[in-house]
Amino acid sequence: MDTYLNPSAPLAERVADLISRLTLDEKIDQMGYTAAAIPRLNIPAYNYWNECLHGVARNGRATVFPQAIGMAATWNPALIQRVACAISDEARAKYHEALRNKGFSDWYQGLTFWSPNINIFRDPRWGRGQETWGEDPHLTGEMGAAFVRGLQGDDPRYLKVSACAKHFAVHSGPESSRHTYDAIPSAHDLHETYLPAFRKLVVEAGVESVMGAYNRVYGEPCCASQLLLTDILRTDWGFEGHVVSDCGAITDFHANHKVTADEAESAALAVRRGCDLACDGVIGNLREAVQRGLITEAEIDASLARTLRTRFKLGMFDPQEQVPYASIPLTVVGSEAHRALAREAAVQSIVLLKNQGNLLPLGAQTRSMAVVGPNAASLDPLLGNYAGQNERMVTLLEGIIAAAPPDTRIDYRAAVPLAQPIRNISGWTGGEGVSFDVTVLCAGLSPLLEGEEGDAILAPGGDREEIGLPAHQVDYIKRMHAFGGKVVLVLNAGSALDISEVEPLVDAILYLWYPGQEGGSALGDVLFGKAVPSGKLPVSFPRLADLPAFDDYDMSRRTYRYAEAEPVFPFGYGLSYTHFTYRDLELTQTGLQVRAAFTLANTGTLRAAEVAQVYLGALDCPFPTPRWRLVHFERRELAPGESCRVEVVLGPEQLALVDDLGQRVAPPGRMRIAIGGSSPSARTPAPLVGTF
Amino acid sequence: MDTYLNPSAPLAERVADLISRLTLDEKIDQMGYTAAAIPRLNIPAYNYWNECLHGVARNGRATVFPQAIGMAATWNPALIQRVACAISDEARAKYHEALRNKGFSDWYQGLTFWSPNINIFRDPRWGRGQETWGEDPHLTGEMGAAFVRGLQGDDPRYLKVSACAKHFAVHSGPESSRHTYDAIPSAHDLHETYLPAFRKLVVEAGVESVMGAYNRVYGEPCCASQLLLTDILRTDWGFEGHVVSDCGAITDFHANHKVTADEAESAALAVRRGCDLACDGVIGNLREAVQRGLITEAEIDASLARTLRTRFKLGMFDPQEQVPYASIPLTVVGSEAHRALAREAAVQSIVLLKNQGNLLPLGAQTRSMAVVGPNAASLDPLLGNYAGQNERMVTLLEGIIAAAPPDTRIDYRAAVPLAQPIRNISGWTGGEGVSFDVTVLCAGLSPLLEGEEGDAILAPGGDREEIGLPAHQVDYIKRMHAFGGKVVLVLNAGSALDISEVEPLVDAILYLWYPGQEGGSALGDVLFGKAVPSGKLPVSFPRLADLPAFDDYDMSRRTYRYAEAEPVFPFGYGLSYTHFTYRDLELTQTGLQVRAAFTLANTGTLRAAEVAQVYLGALDCPFPTPRWRLVHFERRELAPGESCRVEVVLGPEQLALVDDLGQRVAPPGRMRIAIGGSSPSARTPAPLVGTF
Repeated sequence: MDTYLNPSAPLAERVADLISRLTLDEKIDQMGYTAAAIPRLNIPAYNYWNECLHGVARNGRATVFPQAIGMAATWNPALIQRVACAISDEARAKYHEALRNKGFSDWYQGLTFWSPNINIFRDPRWGRGQETWGEDPHLTGEMGAAFVRGLQGDDPRYLKVSACAKHFAVHSGPESSRHTYDAIPSAHDLHETYLPAFRKLVVEAGVESVMGAYNRVYGEPCCASQLLLTDILRTDWGFEGHVVSDCGAITDFHANHKVTADEAESAALAVRRGCDLACDGVIGNLREAVQRGLITEAEIDASLARTLRTRFKLGMFDPQEQVPYASIPLTVVGSEAHRALAREAAVQSIVLLKNQGNLLPLGAQTRSMAVVGPNAASLDPLLGNYAGQNERMVTLLEGIIAAAPPDTRIDYRAAVPLAQPIRNISGWTGGEGVSFDVTVLCAGLSPLLEGEEGDAILAPGGDREEIGLPAHQVDYIKRMHAFGGKVVLVLNAGSALDISEVEPLVDAILYLWYPGQEGGSALGDVLFGKAVPSGKLPVSFPRLADLPAFDDYDMSRRTYRYAEAEPVFPFGYGLSYTHFTYRDLELTQTGLQVRAAFTLANTGTLRAAEVAQVYLGALDCPFPTPRWRLVHFERRELAPGESCRVEVVLGPEQLALVDDLGQRVAPPGRMRIAIGGSSPSARTPAPLVGTF
Repeated sequence: MDTYLNPSAPLAERVADLISRLTLDEKIDQMGYTAAAIPRLNIPAYNYWNECLHGVARNGRATVFPQAIGMAATWNPALIQRVACAISDEARAKYHEALRNKGFSDWYQGLTFWSPNINIFRDPRWGRGQETWGEDPHLTGEMGAAFVRGLQGDDPRYLKVSACAKHFAVHSGPESSRHTYDAIPSAHDLHETYLPAFRKLVVEAGVESVMGAYNRVYGEPCCASQLLLTDILRTDWGFEGHVVSDCGAITDFHANHKVTADEAESAALAVRRGCDLACDGVIGNLREAVQRGLITEAEIDASLARTLRTRFKLGMFDPQEQVPYASIPLTVVGSEAHRALAREAAVQSIVLLKNQGNLLPLGAQTRSMAVVGPNAASLDPLLGNYAGQNERMVTLLEGIIAAAPPDTRIDYRAAVPLAQPIRNISGWTGGEGVSFDVTVLCAGLSPLLEGEEGDAILAPGGDREEIGLPAHQVDYIKRMHAFGGKVVLVLNAGSALDISEVEPLVDAILYLWYPGQEGGSALGDVLFGKAVPSGKLPVSFPRLADLPAFDDYDMSRRTYRYAEAEPVFPFGYGLSYTHFTYRDLELTQTGLQVRAAFTLANTGTLRAAEVAQVYLGALDCPFPTPRWRLVHFERRELAPGESCRVEVVLGPEQLALVDDLGQRVAPPGRMRIAIGGSSPSARTPAPLVGTF
């Protein structure tokens, strides 16, 4: 048996054997994402490009889970690992179905997924912030690692699918300048904010792939960065997988960054600097580059080995009956079990921001209800970007209808458009014609208003300029308030909204993110009390005036970790229908460890979950460090009257500070600790604090 | 036993007995739609206002059938009677549930339904045209009568629910002047166009209620019209039910029409002229009107008797165990059987307007598909106005996902907004980034762009000014065409769209109206060939330049019956995936009858239904009459190769012409007959023609 086809041969030998059989042209044909077939070796064509940020994306039927920012709001890595496992089940089933039917794998049908996006969401204007896990490196790392583990599986031999940590690195908008900007973060910011989640996914979660970002860092395009790809990723972190370029990022070298003179130089530079796979047709110019002596065939072989190694690990060169994941049936796609999981994730992602007079959950006294707003009857605010589709996606309106008692008089009108003024002010649009026990206004943003460069059709460039609700939505809320009925404001967004102007005008606020196919069911569960909200904000909600310029990559004044200004809502915030009490903090310092123990008690009347959060800050520190930084969180579900003792051990890794040079150092002075249900702020002082 | 409570007593005696027990104040409290409770007689409060144009409306969960204009496009009265029967089943179940739970019937929870709307859709700009059954009196009468029969049931004693023929009469926009205009139709137009459908519903279908329109006719407000309510409705047609005002129409007497001086005069005038029930709080001024001698208690008694008679016929004063409909269980609401019926109705409502190269149905060669457009992922274009809601409404996108083979690569983007320009032109918005085997563009209008006075938030006044697609949708189609892929244009609208500019730029066009909760399923059925389209246009599609002024109630130049200009698509038009042939016309004149017989053959390859249409025109007629008028239609389903003989007997009723004085007279000269699959036009000459 040929070595490359022999499952018993060592992986490195199999890869080397296959490469040794290829001509240079055949090798180059494997260096781009549309890898050509090699009929004489019986190797079918393969398209590397696939996406699964929150479900198998852009390939027809799939289960659509909440967009990543919503999954981040669950603060529940175990749940997210189950979600990712369901996603990779569906991915495998769809891949093998396509392979059986067509003999090859087309665009968005392969097993190499360019997810998750673990960039730090440092500014709410970024249209792609919805793809991330929020503004905090620790939360992002924990959630991203769980997602990678769920995708890649735990088979000792085979990857279930390959995950990809993107976009490496220092990448978070503006979309309009992503092909040109040069991020020059401080060493502190690079190592304290921009890199830790990538490091965790590489070192701890074993992510198989890393995607280079469009932009430059310290002058080098990320997809040709000696610092990022060689010194940090491969040397410091020991990464052994493959690096893929963002799509068109290599063309940017000569077309936008101007660091190369032409296509051949760009293709050669990318590969020589360690970008192994190109999502960019320009890679075909490697032929010319070899002829011009810009790169050697041996250098191409080294990159190709890393990419092909992934395909070997996915079982693509093994008998399919030997690959355990190849037998996952098509029936898992969109199964009832996955639907239930999507609902569970959506429920846990919902953040209750206000609940005046305990209006929620709605009870039997609610005999009539108006449902209004541009997001009530649309799938777009369920989907977010990079979405799959499903034959049953439950809009907010449908979820309310399903959950309400059968004799509740409910009526729906759009009443206010998403992003344009009302042209026909009258009863429903003014609020004065609406006489219901409660009005549920489903408003906010949608993927039409924030998204990737070319996707969000109502957002020039994809980003937002403002961070408030669209002005005419604010006007509508004011008219409703003037009328005086009870209003539940349900908001979709993939980012923070400055809702300080409307917060006092409504009775309750639920923040739904882009909750996926079961978004409406989840809203119904929470509105009518079948579920108690437990989501926590993965981003703080700042005011626009308190933000630095969008293109400023200095972390000063950004996120709860560095901002001095009081936010509209703090990072980690989220109310419950029950009440939690934190008490009895005990701190014990032992050598290089600090042990914190405290009691969390459900002192309300409903069974519910709380996410307890532990923050550290440095006192007396000679260099700038975060005011507070999340070092631990855990979600505990408690019955009414129940309490539990939570113990956290903080070792040198958690205690270390990143200094001006980007080095992790032991704290030079005292530390402070804050424990509670959100990050500490003037609005939400921590119930438990201490120093050591 | 008190007579009014005795089910064995004659109806008139029961009504008279109840009225005899009421004080004048109590009587007046029953003259408005919010009838007060009379505790001493154990009579609960009752709210007369309810709506069910296409399903129980505005009262939470229900099955949402296609909007009326879509049901009209089925040209299938038997189907529509089944739909109405399902609606009244749900209405009964919901009414009794509310009664059991609350002891009274609130707004939108009663059994007195103010549907159907049988106004003639004489101008496509009318926002409420979607509520009607199209532009033809015969089609409107046949479909409206079937709807009434389905609603009211066939119990010899009890009404299942009461239907209402509205708006009586000569009412079809503009919405903005509906409270003020005075329609002065010619006698010919009144009796040839505006009244026949009302006559049919009263005389043949036994509709229990008639609603007076807002406007005036010949100077009299419709809700106080001696001509309409007394001379025509009650005297000529023998109507014995009750007349209800449109909502606020009695206030219009003094506030807008200026035919009365104050509220008391308006209230008195309405009742004295035969408007029995007021959807208008001004009716409370009857107290003052009696005191001022504007009306007598006996006159009030006469009106109240007609209204209460309806409630008696609904069984509201009988033991519930005696009312057969009272036992309809809540499980019928939104049942799977009703869902299947909604899907069947939606399928039959779809009109295939173009199918170049037989692109449809899509077959196995379709491996990838883009779904784009503002109506793909929204419930609004399913609903239309006066809609109920359901926990599972299938958007067009969901229907496509459900119907497509599981390995079809499908992706969705909104790509173009409903009614505002794209702000972020790029791959998907330009079409050039889309490389799929076929693109399904879901566009057109929505209830946000056309509807009632205060409902359509993006249409000032509720009506349209243009009758084309929104301009930026046209731009988008031009960009797609420049790119060159295959495009299926799926259009929602409740009215005719002048699509002459885009018709040549797309490969296929499906017209979906507002198709109800199963709209997406129906689209999936038709796109992928599970069903063959059989819908026919219930309105012609004119060009704006060929239309008279919107507020002109002269029928000249309007509808296929009077317009000389060639339309974009003719009334009655609709293609199939199979081919039908008409042949062997045989005309036999016998005394006052003409018998027409012809053969209809399915000469294509698929089982499908065709709606055969018979039109008459008058030759040598000294007074103006319709060029053509529909006198008969029938829907026949035929297997490939199968044919059937259709026989039609046209008696004096069908042959009669309406003269200048509005009198029905025998044809003064020869008649011509045209038979085929649409109304005769230059584009669609009738396959069978004759004269007699």
